[in-house]
Amino acid sequence: MTYVEELLESVAQRLRPSPETLEKAKLYAEKLVKSVEELFGPGTASVEGSFARGTMVRSREEVDIFIHFKPETPVERAAEDVLKRGTELVKNLGGTVRLRYASHPYVEGFLEGLRVNLVPCYDTEYGKWITPVDRTPYHTRYVKSVLDERMADEVRLLKAFLMNDGLYGAEIRNKGFSGYVCELLIIRFGSFLQLVRQASGWKPPVVLDGEKPMSPASAITLLDPVDKTRNAAAAVSLTTLSKLIMKSKLFLKEPSDSYFLSRTSFKPSVEGRCFLAVVLDVPERPPDVLWGELTKTLEGLAKALSGYGFKPLRTDRWFEDGKGLLIFELESLSLPQVYLHTGPPVWSMNAVEFIDEQARKQDLAAYPWVEGERLCSLRRRRFTNAADFVKHLIDGDLASFSKNLRPFLKKSKIYTNLDEVYSAMSEEGRIFLDDFVRTCPNFIAQYHSLG
Amino acid sequence: MTYVEELLESVAQRLRPSPETLEKAKLYAEKLVKSVEELFGPGTASVEGSFARGTMVRSREEVDIFIHFKPETPVERAAEDVLKRGTELVKNLGGTVRLRYASHPYVEGFLEGLRVNLVPCYDTEYGKWITPVDRTPYHTRYVKSVLDERMADEVRLLKAFLMNDGLYGAEIRNKGFSGYVCELLIIRFGSFLQLVRQASGWKPPVVLDGEKPMSPASAITLLDPVDKTRNAAAAVSLTTLSKLIMKSKLFLKEPSDSYFLSRTSFKPSVEGRCFLAVVLDVPERPPDVLWGELTKTLEGLAKALSGYGFKPLRTDRWFEDGKGLLIFELESLSLPQVYLHTGPPVWSMNAVEFIDEQARKQDLAAYPWVEGERLCSLRRRRFTNAADFVKHLIDGDLASFSKNLRPFLKKSKIYTNLDEVYSAMSEEGRIFLDDFVRTCPNFIAQYHSLG
Repeated sequence: MTYVEELLESVAQRLRPSPETLEKAKLYAEKLVKSVEELFGPGTASVEGSFARGTMVRSREEVDIFIHFKPETPVERAAEDVLKRGTELVKNLGGTVRLRYASHPYVEGFLEGLRVNLVPCYDTEYGKWITPVDRTPYHTRYVKSVLDERMADEVRLLKAFLMNDGLYGAEIRNKGFSGYVCELLIIRFGSFLQLVRQASGWKPPVVLDGEKPMSPASAITLLDPVDKTRNAAAAVSLTTLSKLIMKSKLFLKEPSDSYFLSRTSFKPSVEGRCFLAVVLDVPERPPDVLWGELTKTLEGLAKALSGYGFKPLRTDRWFEDGKGLLIFELESLSLPQVYLHTGPPVWSMNAVEFIDEQARKQDLAAYPWVEGERLCSLRRRRFTNAADFVKHLIDGDLASFSKNLRPFLKKSKIYTNLDEVYSAMSEEGRIFLDDFVRTCPNFIAQYHSLG
Repeated sequence: MTYVEELLESVAQRLRPSPETLEKAKLYAEKLVKSVEELFGPGTASVEGSFARGTMVRSREEVDIFIHFKPETPVERAAEDVLKRGTELVKNLGGTVRLRYASHPYVEGFLEGLRVNLVPCYDTEYGKWITPVDRTPYHTRYVKSVLDERMADEVRLLKAFLMNDGLYGAEIRNKGFSGYVCELLIIRFGSFLQLVRQASGWKPPVVLDGEKPMSPASAITLLDPVDKTRNAAAAVSLTTLSKLIMKSKLFLKEPSDSYFLSRTSFKPSVEGRCFLAVVLDVPERPPDVLWGELTKTLEGLAKALSGYGFKPLRTDRWFEDGKGLLIFELESLSLPQVYLHTGPPVWSMNAVEFIDEQARKQDLAAYPWVEGERLCSLRRRRFTNAADFVKHLIDGDLASFSKNLRPFLKKSKIYTNLDEVYSAMSEEGRIFLDDFVRTCPNFIAQYHSLG
């Protein structure tokens, strides 16, 4: 075995769930299937997800039980049924329960520390999916039919490699690789090492199946073997894909288990750097919806800042437990008082009009002149301070904000002092802030042995 | 007569030299021709310029006497001869003398307050010009053959219209319209008003003769009738031409004698505006050479400032009596401490090298991250203050400066306080500064009735 193979073997061992946990998962899966079938009828329960496929990662163990409905059942009724009776069911087994939302609601329970999910789905004809999870049983069947124990280890390596840099999970939060996509990539390339070698040479857009990107927006195209009209990796953003490419290069240059298992604690200097944070209460909503709303609002603010002359160098958003954060690193928190206003060329129809108009402007700083063939004037900025400008945007609904967040934005607080942002955050929020302030992803910090 | 025709008639009257001055000019022209022919031989003197052509403007009267040499005479000898014996000649007539330089040296004298110029030229075959002024006698002959008294008034109107905004004169200082070009324009369009009506509709590049611009750089092409291979208006810059276009539009909208005869005294607010001035002693050199050197140095500094992130909104240069000034209006005198450094895409050959390199940079402000498909990092600026940066450029010869000005630049003073620049300037320099600070050309100030 080469050095890197030995390294991966040792990491893979550490990623396998313990026999005790597997035993516990097996036990509860059986109990849950039995209970579901008692309540919903025979043949209504199936075991899905990484447990069913044997690709669970240690300390991320969970059991997905799908509850199957007939296509005639209205979606709302199926959801209600699962939320109500699923909750009772978990409680009867001695567990605790949270309601969760992905693309649709499901029940998340905890049984002796083991996470279990009860998810409603439909038994539909192939291709006539009613909800996005209706494909999942087909995925499980497909993966189980081709994946052996050795390949399950490779899937775990890939998942951990991605998780360690926030590249895992197809939700809007991460725009990353789903568990299913990880499985497909290992099936396709045979091993984690083969995949990483390939990935280190990718140039986006990457097309692994078919002849062109599924849509111009797809960073990577990987057709779903159980539904060839679908790009299984559609959720992966260009940034996420690019991080995988870069991380693959660095891993191959200097292989280390830190790319799978370690988090940096490096704290960079913030001297001379400028941050602006909007801290707001966020409403109770399905997480994917809220991530979407926060993302839209972040992008709207960034665009408005940038259009006004501020330079957002980096942006990110976060929420947890009712508290949300939009954060910007700006080149500067202040702008010069005046700016160059470029008018029409002297030969244009409205050159005289421009000269007339400028003279009437309250914010005129200097009368028009001629530079080359163009008229220019000097104008005064109404806002020279980023926080004032953001407050003005929020108060007047002047940027492209998520409609649902507007009332919450109005009550938000704007900070430009990083210490104050830290004070306003929970423990989890501070970890997010550390990541943001550090700028470099975990894998680059590991590569440089920072922290 | 229309209102504008009456207005122009009245302005034209005020632009005609007084009979007394014309008489004096005629007298001294005859005396000078006689003296030159006594010294240099018969047929060696000719009367040229606006006096010979009858297009002199009141209070700008001057008499040009050309001294003709045979093509065999070396250029240096001809010049030396004129400088030495021309000086004696003017003094013998009771005048005072300065040496001047255009493309080559000439003698400028004053006789009872009348300016006279003694200029060496060559009698060459048509087209075989030795110095640029050898064409002048042909120009004089041509203009005299087609221009009558009425048209001379029109030429004076055009000259005054241009002079009042620094658009007159082909030297590097103004990059404007020569007297000869003014005469050609009136010959072509018949009157000042016809020209202005045409000019108000021009779109650069303007081609009045031929089929295309003489060179891609020519803002306006007007073939010289005595030398059809030459663009008589080659010296006119795009900015100068554009000012004429704009001024023509405003004049036609609101005709007024102030476009010919009045200077604004409007002083704008400078609140929030940023100026940087380099004040230097300048060497004794032909003015066109010195204007060229100052222009090159100004452009070199502006380019360096701009490349570093400062925003020069406007620039200009000036000199007189051994004192030079380079002045910049900047958006800001300071820059943020950090800036975004954009690296290669993750898929490029040197992505890993970029990550390695950045970590070694002393000015690294934050380690690289991945945005889209690109690597970026945050770097610290060495200079955040414009004056420090300019001093650094000058001390290290780090911008494209005129070689001859470098030692003078090294001893220059840099100011960012406008009052201090005013204090460092002569009366003439302060007028230049007023114009610069006002931003708008005189004609826009007149249009808005400012000052």
